[in-house]
Amino acid sequence: MENIAVDLLGQRGVAVDDMAELVLRLQTQYNSSLTLDKCRHTVMAVLTKREVQHAVITGITLDKMAERAALDEPLGSLVRGDDPLFGMDKSLGLAIVNVYGSIGLSNYGFLAQERPGVLARLGQRPGFVSTFLDDIVAAIVAASCARLAHQAEGAVAVP
Amino acid sequence: MENIAVDLLGQRGVAVDDMAELVLRLQTQYNSSLTLDKCRHTVMAVLTKREVQHAVITGITLDKMAERAALDEPLGSLVRGDDPLFGMDKSLGLAIVNVYGSIGLSNYGFLAQERPGVLARLGQRPGFVSTFLDDIVAAIVAASCARLAHQAEGAVAVP
Amino acid sequence: MENIAVDLLGQRGVAVDDMAELVLRLQTQYNSSLTLDKCRHTVMAVLTKREVQHAVITGITLDKMAERAALDEPLGSLVRGDDPLFGMDKSLGLAIVNVYGSIGLSNYGFLAQERPGVLARLGQRPGFVSTFLDDIVAAIVAASCARLAHQAEGAVAVP
Amino acid sequence: MENIAVDLLGQRGVAVDDMAELVLRLQTQYNSSLTLDKCRHTVMAVLTKREVQHAVITGITLDKMAERAALDEPLGSLVRGDDPLFGMDKSLGLAIVNVYGSIGLSNYGFLAQERPGVLARLGQRPGFVSTFLDDIVAAIVAASCARLAHQAEGAVAVP
Repeated sequence: MENIAVDLLGQRGVAVDDMAELVLRLQTQYNSSLTLDKCRHTVMAVLTKREVQHAVITGITLDKMAERAALDEPLGSLVRGDDPLFGMDKSLGLAIVNVYGSIGLSNYGFLAQERPGVLARLGQRPGFVSTFLDDIVAAIVAASCARLAHQAEGAVAVP
Repeated sequence: MENIAVDLLGQRGVAVDDMAELVLRLQTQYNSSLTLDKCRHTVMAVLTKREVQHAVITGITLDKMAERAALDEPLGSLVRGDDPLFGMDKSLGLAIVNVYGSIGLSNYGFLAQERPGVLARLGQRPGFVSTFLDDIVAAIVAASCARLAHQAEGAVAVP
Repeated sequence: MENIAVDLLGQRGVAVDDMAELVLRLQTQYNSSLTLDKCRHTVMAVLTKREVQHAVITGITLDKMAERAALDEPLGSLVRGDDPLFGMDKSLGLAIVNVYGSIGLSNYGFLAQERPGVLARLGQRPGFVSTFLDDIVAAIVAASCARLAHQAEGAVAVP
Repeated sequence: MENIAVDLLGQRGVAVDDMAELVLRLQTQYNSSLTLDKCRHTVMAVLTKREVQHAVITGITLDKMAERAALDEPLGSLVRGDDPLFGMDKSLGLAIVNVYGSIGLSNYGFLAQERPGVLARLGQRPGFVSTFLDDIVAAIVAASCARLAHQAEGAVAVP
């Protein structure tokens, strides 16, 4: 299933490198020897987790089907509207972040609100539905930062 | 939107009274003067919350569309399969439970695992997809118990 | 117990008005007629919730006792160190945010990372332990914003 | 820090084998070739996770200090009272469970409510405070079951 998550993200205009660049930008202040290659490897490791794959598949499918008006109503309108009160997108992002513990929470919220890098781009395509994608990408980047932070400490064997 | 949640649950064979009966069964040991009518009122109050309504709409729509093979693959198969590793159903249930705080967590897990009352019935209809419905019903009952517990203490004004 | 939460926050240098000002700053873009008085009322309503009170009591007590070296080791050192990998402070903040649903998550993360207003001040007092306080304040502000957003929509009766 | 978590649990009367036995009891229906030794290994792997260690240290320290009346009030009374409305014990348990994804949630709730095996014993010692310990043990067992379930599927590389 790993390729499905990477493929679905790619179909929606988000490459692994887009996410790796955000990880590098956020973590370089804590670890000046961090490379884009290491970030890329970390994002891929996060995308290998089953909980993450299920969240990517669920969220992106909802976005895509809402976009082509294939979801039953009122869910289609709720997803297309991206109402800040919808909440299901954030619940799904939280499921991703939690896989590396609560330390990813502040990066997740920061990215979802400030929308740097690829996240800025996602919001600017007319007719493109990214209600879940926004939170999925922010959550994958935040989880990747959390994974790096745990590894930097060394003591943690994530078995 | 309140009627949409009640309507969707009703379409899937779950009446407000089915949930109220489970609430009564779980809470009567703590409050012997509790009535079915009070439980019914509590379930309705939970179903008025927007986060709960959004979760009901999202989850039941996914079940219904998976059932009639209208979801894109592989999401359709994941929802139909109800793989215990899927996890998105539980994330959505958690979003409902959390609205009345973490005290609903143990009732939620207990109901999801033991499947008393209406929950037993849901699993026995051939061809009927209740991957999300099971967790939604368990979560609404657990949230209702949490709401009653908070009220029984009196001191809590849930404003 | 309501006064205990307000009192504990006040003892640690955080007034209800400090939090109300952050709410106003974050929400004024969505609601230009919002007043500080309305924000103050909202923060107080959040502080009335039992889950919030328990989190405030637990977190601030841990901070205070760690500060005066009264916690058993290694917990005392973990709380004093405010290691970004500690995580318990974020779990407790999440319990507060969740009371108004997942929509508060991005404000919570943003505040925890950017530290505007009173949050900037908290980190600058030598010897002052605010490991939990930082997350508690960010979470109360985020929950207050979520409560306002729900109310602005009107349809939500938070019963 | 691994030994600190095992040591703290042992000091409170919970051996790794007590938890491994509960894992075996819950999972044997899904995997008849599962052994106690495999369960023991899995519990140890869960106890190696930093988020889990921090939760164990925080929760058991609160129990122990509440027991000897060393916590500031009203936190001491809240922890000693084990009020079902307290909630912080469940938030901390949730942080442990989430490390292996939401699939552990129903086992966690079931164990917290039904209290089989070592959990039954914990509640029967007069003067012994196990407000957090109960939820910690239930959560470690549930997380261990989730880890086994992910591994049984084979496809998951938890890197």
